[in-house]
Amino acid sequence: MSKGIPKRSEDYSLWYNELVKKADLAENSPVRGCMVIKPYGFSIWEKMQAEIDRMFKETGHTNAYFPLFIPKSYLSKEADHVEGFAKECAVVTHYRLKNDENGNGVVVDPEAKLEEELIVRPTSETVIWNTYKNWVQSYRDLPILVNQWANVVRWEMRTRLFLRTAEFLWQEGHTAHATKQEAIDESVQMMNVYAQFAEEFMAVPVIKGIKSESERFAGAVETYCIEALMQDGKALQAGTSHFLGQNFAKAFDVKFTSKEGKQDFVWGTSWGVSTRLMGALIMAHSDDQGLVLPPKLAPIQVVIVPIYKGEEQLNAIRDKVNEFIPALRKAGVSVKLDDRDTHKPGFKFAEWELKGVPVRLAMGPRDMENNTLEIARRDTGEKETFDLSNDLVAKIEGLLTDIQDSIYQKAVAYRAEHTTEVNSYEEFKEVLESKGGFVSAHWDGTAETEEQIKDETKATIRCIHIDAKEEEGVCIYSGKPSSRRVLFAKAY
Amino acid sequence: MSKGIPKRSEDYSLWYNELVKKADLAENSPVRGCMVIKPYGFSIWEKMQAEIDRMFKETGHTNAYFPLFIPKSYLSKEADHVEGFAKECAVVTHYRLKNDENGNGVVVDPEAKLEEELIVRPTSETVIWNTYKNWVQSYRDLPILVNQWANVVRWEMRTRLFLRTAEFLWQEGHTAHATKQEAIDESVQMMNVYAQFAEEFMAVPVIKGIKSESERFAGAVETYCIEALMQDGKALQAGTSHFLGQNFAKAFDVKFTSKEGKQDFVWGTSWGVSTRLMGALIMAHSDDQGLVLPPKLAPIQVVIVPIYKGEEQLNAIRDKVNEFIPALRKAGVSVKLDDRDTHKPGFKFAEWELKGVPVRLAMGPRDMENNTLEIARRDTGEKETFDLSNDLVAKIEGLLTDIQDSIYQKAVAYRAEHTTEVNSYEEFKEVLESKGGFVSAHWDGTAETEEQIKDETKATIRCIHIDAKEEEGVCIYSGKPSSRRVLFAKAY
Ligand SMILES: [Zn+2]
Ligand SMILES: [Zn+2]
Repeated sequence: MSKGIPKRSEDYSLWYNELVKKADLAENSPVRGCMVIKPYGFSIWEKMQAEIDRMFKETGHTNAYFPLFIPKSYLSKEADHVEGFAKECAVVTHYRLKNDENGNGVVVDPEAKLEEELIVRPTSETVIWNTYKNWVQSYRDLPILVNQWANVVRWEMRTRLFLRTAEFLWQEGHTAHATKQEAIDESVQMMNVYAQFAEEFMAVPVIKGIKSESERFAGAVETYCIEALMQDGKALQAGTSHFLGQNFAKAFDVKFTSKEGKQDFVWGTSWGVSTRLMGALIMAHSDDQGLVLPPKLAPIQVVIVPIYKGEEQLNAIRDKVNEFIPALRKAGVSVKLDDRDTHKPGFKFAEWELKGVPVRLAMGPRDMENNTLEIARRDTGEKETFDLSNDLVAKIEGLLTDIQDSIYQKAVAYRAEHTTEVNSYEEFKEVLESKGGFVSAHWDGTAETEEQIKDETKATIRCIHIDAKEEEGVCIYSGKPSSRRVLFAKAY
Repeated sequence: MSKGIPKRSEDYSLWYNELVKKADLAENSPVRGCMVIKPYGFSIWEKMQAEIDRMFKETGHTNAYFPLFIPKSYLSKEADHVEGFAKECAVVTHYRLKNDENGNGVVVDPEAKLEEELIVRPTSETVIWNTYKNWVQSYRDLPILVNQWANVVRWEMRTRLFLRTAEFLWQEGHTAHATKQEAIDESVQMMNVYAQFAEEFMAVPVIKGIKSESERFAGAVETYCIEALMQDGKALQAGTSHFLGQNFAKAFDVKFTSKEGKQDFVWGTSWGVSTRLMGALIMAHSDDQGLVLPPKLAPIQVVIVPIYKGEEQLNAIRDKVNEFIPALRKAGVSVKLDDRDTHKPGFKFAEWELKGVPVRLAMGPRDMENNTLEIARRDTGEKETFDLSNDLVAKIEGLLTDIQDSIYQKAVAYRAEHTTEVNSYEEFKEVLESKGGFVSAHWDGTAETEEQIKDETKATIRCIHIDAKEEEGVCIYSGKPSSRRVLFAKAY
């Protein structure tokens, strides 16, 4: 098959777009900015969801579901929030269509106008805190540790599959606590959960950090985040966790009576990851041949391609592989036998390479004679002949573990190479231009400097590293004193 | 605790509403017709989803995701479909808000009016068939066996939690086939999957049948359904599966080239169940004390309530129950130890009864002395003292199986008692008034008769039983000849 994707070095952006489509991950829909997540892409997302959901439950959270629509007036209740979210959003104004009098299909019924417009949720803090108000009276009702898996809509003008779409899928956790410290601990815990997921399952190393004030979530007191680095040297924010202080509790009047009988506002957090993670997963590991998937998230971990002439040879190979397929499946390995007679082995090799299946087994007449098969790993392209008198299950399990670890280490090495400490603005700009990546530099802490650097270089402060050490220095831009470095990068 | 729910015999409808709220299943939101599914309710829905999703995958389906919004013009492309769905729906007309010039929060920006309005999906046939058009060229691309889990919106004027809400959660399967027979087989298969789920997991017996033309899905050639009977004698449609013929393929021009090189339109099906199943589950088994959950869908299968005075006794009981809790969990039983010191045992008993936990274990000082505990089953209220020198895990497993079976048999018996064959319209009306339930009667096959019976009695044709046998008779209403009986009932 012709893969029809350009090389990363030729056009990284086009490489990404074509890969997403050709590997059957997603495609644009006729509805502006909304994507169709295709079955293969969705099966990866489902594996992500399953692991993330398990981690949420292990940390004491339960799922619930809140309305898709938010009354317009709710958005205005938290002053910062409205500035951040009440702008580009889908507005429902009517609740009925009727037949057009001129016979041209259906038209909006002007008599079915809503008294108050409804906004398709861009995020659910407002409608959820309005609900929590009725759930909380006493300290006994706290904490509330709730998550929802949902679709949200933000009317983006420039969209890209998975990375920035008008509608996307995500989870949003919303918790309520009796004390400030407990809420801060929760926000930090969820940042850690996200980091663990990214590193252990996606094989994507991430920086844990705190956002600068101008990059903070609208309505939050502090935004914690995880930041990943893509192969083109651009950063990608992969998850955020917000300490909301008492902002939403005050906006929606959510109070509780403490053990000591005192009334106080509740402390809140919210945190989310989205189908954007798919974009990070794709860009972090894939190559010019197509997708490279970490075994822990690959819907198909092992594909078997028979090489044969005629039905008889195919049946012999089928019988042979069916001797070991059950043992692999029993060991939890997902295996697909691609015995389609409509396509040649070369086409199948290319297709599964494009789709990122970690391990490919091929078996032909000579293998049948020698009791062997060929094992090829997707990440390095290495091939070897395996003698089937040895333990195939152990071999495959070992290989999957090795691939998972290997692509993670490769990403760690790439990030190490592309993280640079600079001490002058000249150096800063030069590094951004030449190799990109994270640039660690002193900053005077002002929004003005941040803004000017962004205007001049397109680089933004990704975060202040959670473990940033105190270090005397001067801001690369203003020359004013600074007490620690922050991480800059161009970003998705 | 005071449960605050009326008896079923006093006010069945109010009993249902209060039970849903008091058992923490769901509540109304301030957004008209939209519900909040609370954590306990959602955990039941998640268990349903997990089983249904597994059954879909075992029958070869994969999940995908399609846009929330449908361009208005799409709805008009299938003539029957537009009549059925393009009426009461949420219409997005604008994509931006702006600050009100008079300082009153935010207002819709009149300059951000969409060229074509978007409809929040009431069901996704149109947007999905528009997508399938690009996925199908040859018979090799068929069948497409895709499902999506999604939220949908139908602007209902009168809503009830779970049973009829403006926004609800569901799954919608959409399949495409090369032959008519394959599509029919698929529709029938999915009706059978739904029936199996309802009976095996929900413990709700269902009638499998075919809808009359006037009850058919808008755009379908045939609608298969499963119909359950609630404790008030009303029927509830629990799932539908539609054979779409080539209707949507023609509307969206989805053609394929057959093996023989001939062009033809693709054959389709669609099928869905929704959070309405929660309503069916609640109404089928619950009693005046609260929810009764089938063990296979209960988020908590066993609750343990310690009866103690003082911290010392509590600790002793804790140690004791922690000896057997791990063994229960290892056997796959979900166990909760309710050792809250903020509530008395009586309160806890009532709370878990209200929430439908199938088995309650209680342990007090005398039990500690005798090495026993008290086992109470939720469905019958029966209690027994169990000697802990016997095998508790086997006991509990047996009890859960027995409860699952027992509530199913109870529902089967109720339905048998409430299914009546009648041969005259007088009898028909009398049965409907006196005991309700399914009424099996001859019908002349015309929409006019169906309509008139509905107007006069509020009973509708629930379905023509899938195995309805040929039987000469006369229509109870018109006296015209009829060749088989159909099932009438008042319905949700
Ligand atoms: Zn960061
Ligand atoms: Zn029926």
